[in-house]
Amino acid sequence: MGYDGVELACWGDHFDVQQALNEDGYVEGRWELLQQNEMVCYAISNHLVGQAVCDNIDERHQSILSPVVWGDGDPEGVRQRAAQEMIDTAKACRKFVDAGASYMADKPAGSGRAVVNGFTGSSIWHSIYAFPPTSQEYYQKGFDDFAARWKPILDEFDAVNVDFGLEVHPTEIAFDIASAARAIEAVGGHSRFGFNYDPSHLGYQGVDYVKFIRDFPERIFHVHMKDAWWGHGDGTVGVFGGHTDFTDPRRFWDFRSVGRGDTDFEEIIVALNDIAYAGPLSVEWEDGRMDRIHGAAESCAFTRDLDFAPSDVIFDSAFDKENQ
Amino acid sequence: MGYDGVELACWGDHFDVQQALNEDGYVEGRWELLQQNEMVCYAISNHLVGQAVCDNIDERHQSILSPVVWGDGDPEGVRQRAAQEMIDTAKACRKFVDAGASYMADKPAGSGRAVVNGFTGSSIWHSIYAFPPTSQEYYQKGFDDFAARWKPILDEFDAVNVDFGLEVHPTEIAFDIASAARAIEAVGGHSRFGFNYDPSHLGYQGVDYVKFIRDFPERIFHVHMKDAWWGHGDGTVGVFGGHTDFTDPRRFWDFRSVGRGDTDFEEIIVALNDIAYAGPLSVEWEDGRMDRIHGAAESCAFTRDLDFAPSDVIFDSAFDKENQ
Amino acid sequence: MGYDGVELACWGDHFDVQQALNEDGYVEGRWELLQQNEMVCYAISNHLVGQAVCDNIDERHQSILSPVVWGDGDPEGVRQRAAQEMIDTAKACRKFVDAGASYMADKPAGSGRAVVNGFTGSSIWHSIYAFPPTSQEYYQKGFDDFAARWKPILDEFDAVNVDFGLEVHPTEIAFDIASAARAIEAVGGHSRFGFNYDPSHLGYQGVDYVKFIRDFPERIFHVHMKDAWWGHGDGTVGVFGGHTDFTDPRRFWDFRSVGRGDTDFEEIIVALNDIAYAGPLSVEWEDGRMDRIHGAAESCAFTRDLDFAPSDVIFDSAFDKENQ
Amino acid sequence: MGYDGVELACWGDHFDVQQALNEDGYVEGRWELLQQNEMVCYAISNHLVGQAVCDNIDERHQSILSPVVWGDGDPEGVRQRAAQEMIDTAKACRKFVDAGASYMADKPAGSGRAVVNGFTGSSIWHSIYAFPPTSQEYYQKGFDDFAARWKPILDEFDAVNVDFGLEVHPTEIAFDIASAARAIEAVGGHSRFGFNYDPSHLGYQGVDYVKFIRDFPERIFHVHMKDAWWGHGDGTVGVFGGHTDFTDPRRFWDFRSVGRGDTDFEEIIVALNDIAYAGPLSVEWEDGRMDRIHGAAESCAFTRDLDFAPSDVIFDSAFDKENQ
Amino acid sequence: MGYDGVELACWGDHFDVQQALNEDGYVEGRWELLQQNEMVCYAISNHLVGQAVCDNIDERHQSILSPVVWGDGDPEGVRQRAAQEMIDTAKACRKFVDAGASYMADKPAGSGRAVVNGFTGSSIWHSIYAFPPTSQEYYQKGFDDFAARWKPILDEFDAVNVDFGLEVHPTEIAFDIASAARAIEAVGGHSRFGFNYDPSHLGYQGVDYVKFIRDFPERIFHVHMKDAWWGHGDGTVGVFGGHTDFTDPRRFWDFRSVGRGDTDFEEIIVALNDIAYAGPLSVEWEDGRMDRIHGAAESCAFTRDLDFAPSDVIFDSAFDKENQ
Amino acid sequence: MGYDGVELACWGDHFDVQQALNEDGYVEGRWELLQQNEMVCYAISNHLVGQAVCDNIDERHQSILSPVVWGDGDPEGVRQRAAQEMIDTAKACRKFVDAGASYMADKPAGSGRAVVNGFTGSSIWHSIYAFPPTSQEYYQKGFDDFAARWKPILDEFDAVNVDFGLEVHPTEIAFDIASAARAIEAVGGHSRFGFNYDPSHLGYQGVDYVKFIRDFPERIFHVHMKDAWWGHGDGTVGVFGGHTDFTDPRRFWDFRSVGRGDTDFEEIIVALNDIAYAGPLSVEWEDGRMDRIHGAAESCAFTRDLDFAPSDVIFDSAFDKENQ
Repeated sequence: MGYDGVELACWGDHFDVQQALNEDGYVEGRWELLQQNEMVCYAISNHLVGQAVCDNIDERHQSILSPVVWGDGDPEGVRQRAAQEMIDTAKACRKFVDAGASYMADKPAGSGRAVVNGFTGSSIWHSIYAFPPTSQEYYQKGFDDFAARWKPILDEFDAVNVDFGLEVHPTEIAFDIASAARAIEAVGGHSRFGFNYDPSHLGYQGVDYVKFIRDFPERIFHVHMKDAWWGHGDGTVGVFGGHTDFTDPRRFWDFRSVGRGDTDFEEIIVALNDIAYAGPLSVEWEDGRMDRIHGAAESCAFTRDLDFAPSDVIFDSAFDKENQ
Repeated sequence: MGYDGVELACWGDHFDVQQALNEDGYVEGRWELLQQNEMVCYAISNHLVGQAVCDNIDERHQSILSPVVWGDGDPEGVRQRAAQEMIDTAKACRKFVDAGASYMADKPAGSGRAVVNGFTGSSIWHSIYAFPPTSQEYYQKGFDDFAARWKPILDEFDAVNVDFGLEVHPTEIAFDIASAARAIEAVGGHSRFGFNYDPSHLGYQGVDYVKFIRDFPERIFHVHMKDAWWGHGDGTVGVFGGHTDFTDPRRFWDFRSVGRGDTDFEEIIVALNDIAYAGPLSVEWEDGRMDRIHGAAESCAFTRDLDFAPSDVIFDSAFDKENQ
Repeated sequence: MGYDGVELACWGDHFDVQQALNEDGYVEGRWELLQQNEMVCYAISNHLVGQAVCDNIDERHQSILSPVVWGDGDPEGVRQRAAQEMIDTAKACRKFVDAGASYMADKPAGSGRAVVNGFTGSSIWHSIYAFPPTSQEYYQKGFDDFAARWKPILDEFDAVNVDFGLEVHPTEIAFDIASAARAIEAVGGHSRFGFNYDPSHLGYQGVDYVKFIRDFPERIFHVHMKDAWWGHGDGTVGVFGGHTDFTDPRRFWDFRSVGRGDTDFEEIIVALNDIAYAGPLSVEWEDGRMDRIHGAAESCAFTRDLDFAPSDVIFDSAFDKENQ
Repeated sequence: MGYDGVELACWGDHFDVQQALNEDGYVEGRWELLQQNEMVCYAISNHLVGQAVCDNIDERHQSILSPVVWGDGDPEGVRQRAAQEMIDTAKACRKFVDAGASYMADKPAGSGRAVVNGFTGSSIWHSIYAFPPTSQEYYQKGFDDFAARWKPILDEFDAVNVDFGLEVHPTEIAFDIASAARAIEAVGGHSRFGFNYDPSHLGYQGVDYVKFIRDFPERIFHVHMKDAWWGHGDGTVGVFGGHTDFTDPRRFWDFRSVGRGDTDFEEIIVALNDIAYAGPLSVEWEDGRMDRIHGAAESCAFTRDLDFAPSDVIFDSAFDKENQ
Repeated sequence: MGYDGVELACWGDHFDVQQALNEDGYVEGRWELLQQNEMVCYAISNHLVGQAVCDNIDERHQSILSPVVWGDGDPEGVRQRAAQEMIDTAKACRKFVDAGASYMADKPAGSGRAVVNGFTGSSIWHSIYAFPPTSQEYYQKGFDDFAARWKPILDEFDAVNVDFGLEVHPTEIAFDIASAARAIEAVGGHSRFGFNYDPSHLGYQGVDYVKFIRDFPERIFHVHMKDAWWGHGDGTVGVFGGHTDFTDPRRFWDFRSVGRGDTDFEEIIVALNDIAYAGPLSVEWEDGRMDRIHGAAESCAFTRDLDFAPSDVIFDSAFDKENQ
Repeated sequence: MGYDGVELACWGDHFDVQQALNEDGYVEGRWELLQQNEMVCYAISNHLVGQAVCDNIDERHQSILSPVVWGDGDPEGVRQRAAQEMIDTAKACRKFVDAGASYMADKPAGSGRAVVNGFTGSSIWHSIYAFPPTSQEYYQKGFDDFAARWKPILDEFDAVNVDFGLEVHPTEIAFDIASAARAIEAVGGHSRFGFNYDPSHLGYQGVDYVKFIRDFPERIFHVHMKDAWWGHGDGTVGVFGGHTDFTDPRRFWDFRSVGRGDTDFEEIIVALNDIAYAGPLSVEWEDGRMDRIHGAAESCAFTRDLDFAPSDVIFDSAFDKENQ
């Protein structure tokens, strides 16, 4: 369909963290498969386990966790096992990257980072809107809990030279620019903590998703090309979603195949070029209204059309004799 | 400041439910105070106790409940005591209205309803955005819980001929038009269940707050004239609020004094006239950026300017000889 | 309610053309009434009769015409009697203006014109949208018919030194700027043919109602301050009106009390000042959603607030020493 | 140019109703031609004759009718002959569809309908805007006339198992959603009465053309991909058209080649998928500013790009273990 | 007309710098006049002389300078005499303020600053747009020139405890936020260099005039309530002005009486309250389309309506028991 | 990359005026190069020298002029040598066009014009914004100077049958529609004076760039397809540019590759077709954010997609029998 590479997910059959760590030849096998398909790989993603690290665990988490991490479902136990699994993911990522070093040697360098993308969960998401009246002390406890649980994880990432890219997203400790800045502050500006930039979670909220790039130029570790539309529907459901399912025609916003939504990717690419982002543009395709194959192909074409190399020559000096 | 009436709140020193029920002369005393200020009264509000009926109780609820309702803070106990307090509120409202009958006899009739306005709480608010993946079964359990707890309350309202007006609002079982319709369905279209219409909670979400009126013409029991603005801030905080306080300059939306926000009250008044709403327009003033007295006065003036009597004469027939 | 003057309509009990011409003391009686109310008068309006001059007459016209003009209802006869009545209206206007000369002597001069405002009707309105395919020859026949019927009338207006102000309006020979220009051309630029400018018929069509003023600076004989809103409704009825009644909530547009609609009167006043319009701003109040008395009073206040005297001093020279 | 099929028009040289009924081998000849061009066909259109069924006939109709239907031009006679011709069109359509059954057997099924698209005319179009004052009784007579003339036609359609798709359009009995609903009501919800959906006639009016689809999910019999732009021109001509020709630069709106106008086809396709529309997307190309061949080719490409198969998989469950 | 105070201008007959410094009783006489009119005064303005300090002097400057400052018109001489006059203005301001201390003692304190408002001129304004290609070195020479000329002046301001408020404005060294920041940097963040905030010069350029307040909270020394509109005209003249005069109907933008333009003063007041600005809101009235007296009165009323005292109470805690 | 032709610039190595006039075989060599690349050529451009004809010369001009034209840099001398060089350019253009006559004989005719595109400079650009107060007399001197310098040049253009196309642009005598009209008037409507239409210099100013085409249908000698965006940046820099470099992320506007900006080329092409413009669409590519080769290729493709041949058939008559 035109893709050059893939981001391996730690669910489904893409990439199994424990097999990677414990099974001989597993990571090499992954690279063989990539090589057969002439694909590169710059990132591993483990959103589902990450979600459980800080969350107030409820019955819904069972469906996204392996039986081992879920265990008896006791919330604190789940959270601690999830934290350990994230550390294991970093180690598996390092092992995988090292195994592919020779294959990747003549491929585009990307940002030079080994990145695990994922979620963090949050102990305070349930309190959004802030009623009963919610004080900054209450919120801060959530950020402190995040720091207490994730700093040790990030230190282990550092030990194996891997970066963590949080996908800023509702239900996570960071879901807009302000909370992203507060999360950075909570972990003391840890150098391994950055972002898997994904505009589709920001635009419909009214967050300036281009400003996100300009505010965190050093921490854009990975980029998801995913689209959403907003300002749609029949006016009966707003940004909070009305307890409806995705693709419900009443919804104010929904995910769309890249290029069919309201995200201004032109501005995003310009900003990514301005900050000299050199990593991949990774299409995350989720559009409940479109055939998956059709969508993946058109998304790839759309992204290629956008991803021009920035110029080294500034306009006006073109008129200058010195440059002729 | 120009107001004709007041909506008595069951917190602070406005109106004490238990005193009203148990203390001789209490409700009469309330009317004496109203009479001295030449004020009318059409509604009681008890938002804080209502909130506790369905909520997942946490430490924040203690600050909004009386020691009696809070008790030992055990969630289920709190919820049940709150439910009982709402029933008592209906009874107190009836006692209060009856006591004021002769004073109110020569005042404008309003809608003819005795209304308690309030919140319901919700056991599923925490799951908005829907991650981990949240099924309709999960949501429906929330609406079923609401029905199980509120139907008995509404029956008691019916027994004393009092209506309950839910202020549709984030953190409640209904926070937009779709969830309001689903809540009505959950209680089987109970005749005592309607709305304290307040556009300030709908517009910033992207909900069509005028359509709300046209979709529920029979259930608009009370109207709050309260304003909000949206599309403001510096782009770093979206509709979800970013765990910031109200009046934080970074916020996408905030409450504003009536007439200083983005709500189109002209359309609201037209729709209320179209459905023949005859109850009061009750200014709820909340603007963290303005002096309270200044705001209350300007809000009253703004509302008076809007609240014209609708015409009985249709335009075009004015050209017709028959009408001349 | 604050008004200084009135525009007398030739229907209802304002002003009777035949009585004015034939009954001794009638026009003097009108002035006495005006004087008692301390009112001035600059214009007579006779829309209903004018409509019948060019229209394809059908059953609806009977309700807007006097029995004399309607006669047996034969279309051509109706049109000719209506044409004669418009000539009589000019004569009656002259008689009325002359009778008030001394009373008006110390009042503001206005534009110095005696104006009859009105409609013209049109033999081609029914063909708008142009299906079956409608050629320019077909349309031109309509403008030629207009010229043949109205030029003799305008000549009679000229004979008694009275101007005719067409209210540009759907169903008339002119309903936008292009058709207004074509109508002027049809009557050879007759000096007595101008406009009773009324933006409420232009804005909802998408016509640039401010440009109208700048395109016809010499022919703005009178101004109606009347408002409309557009872009409203539920999307089921468009500009063509959907065969609905005014004030139907489904409508895209409707008339509104001045200041409650979408007309930008600020731009209108600036343009009227730029062309040195000196005539009255005549509030025409039609809002099926508002009490007539309330509406008339608020419209007067709104208009007074707009109608400032233009400055004779240009900004920048205020900094210049010569002007200090 | 990329098209898979064609809609045959009963004017020009596409399809002759009387030949189809009376001439041996005629319909088979049509299929041979289609087969040679590897084209499918799902619909016949007969707009011009349909227009004459309800219209107030004038000289313009002669140019769109055959000499037989026009006859002596007496209005009632024209209307009755047009009605009979529409019945014949249904019969010819059935004969044509049956003749092509084996050829079409291995082609995409479409909606499974045999459809005649067309116009209805209207006896009340001339009264839009509603001056002289027009009562609902007056309008209703137009809908009653429509019902009286079309119900017998629709019954004959039913007898031969053919559907009639009205192209909602100015000058027809239905030209927006409100009048479309009223037309359905007028014919008692006749099962053979539905729509040839064409957004290009709705958007410039301010009608919500996406809502049209959601309001009539069972009656979208055919879809025209035709575009228009609006909000253009120089402000001198509004939606009513100013008696100008199409492509006049002063016009507020005009038809444009699909994809060059202001219609949001993305929303249309989503809505058509939501209602499970399975019929063809038929490009109707009319753009007075573009070469016909160029336009037809680019329109086909534009439409193909939009017409994706909807997904059977809903987004969020993709994260769910059960689906992996 | 409702004003409480006045800003004295050093041109016309308001305030003469040399008389203030050299003539006994002059400043006392100014206060007597203020006292007779019950006016306060917080600022002196000397825009015209300030303009000449950095400008490339041409024939136009003669009309805005006194004969003494103009002298023989030699550019460098004019610039140096203008610089000296600005120093004198600071001294005169100090003398004036001291003389009014007792009268002002019981008046609102304002910001507690003595402020001279004015312009700076610029040696590089002529190079805007930047063609022939203009390097940052070229621009920087302009800022260096500004620093070289104004730092000595600002030091003299400091010596007499007076602040200088630059009105950011085209033709000055700073005309938007970026150039304002660069000007601060050029004078090393001199504590006496701040701004006379005037949104009317920023909005039509597309500059975020509210952000200006939030970016320079410590340097808003004075505020001009002056309005402009933009997005007007007939499209033939853009932001650069087309060498037309103010009030030319073709212009994209123009100054308007406060409240009649496109400036969002609501956002401005909110931002000023957020930064705790305590100085005056000084109406600067310039509207070539309006009578001066009418404009001054309406501007005063508009400003009073906006200038509410900010609240000390934050919304949400109003629900909290602790605050009841 | 898909281009059919080229516009030769008189700087860099494209085209040397003096060589063309004085060197045998030079112009023939240019054509040989074009022929080898299968390119056509309709225009020469000499912006840099033209700029110096009217400008107030400063140090920046040295970098855009040849040593011969610059000479000793004395302003008046530079202006006169530049004027002579423009005359030489016309002569060189004629010589070049004549030399290519046989090669171009079977190529599309274009407009049939030989065009030199360029700038004029301006002695009054520095006075935009108009402070110190600038009178119309002051501006008029600038237009008179332009006329005095350019009329003789245009006469020489006429003598060799070459047209001059001014690229309307800030820093030139004409930079919007109003100043373009005034420039035409200044040179007495000289038939050789027209425009090299380039919308990228007009849109960000707020000038109606489509109206430009409709206002000067006879004088559009050449068209540059160049794009810009506006309404971007962070609000700190406005239309005046803030003394920043192109591609600075703070800028309100910037040049963009054709199709990536905010220019509505669809409207432009429609207008060009309406005025029957037959010359080339010449892509001028300047986008400091994009690789030059990538940009040139995508711009060519974008332009080809727009440049359809206009239709000779008007829509509605397609329904007419006569045309079938």
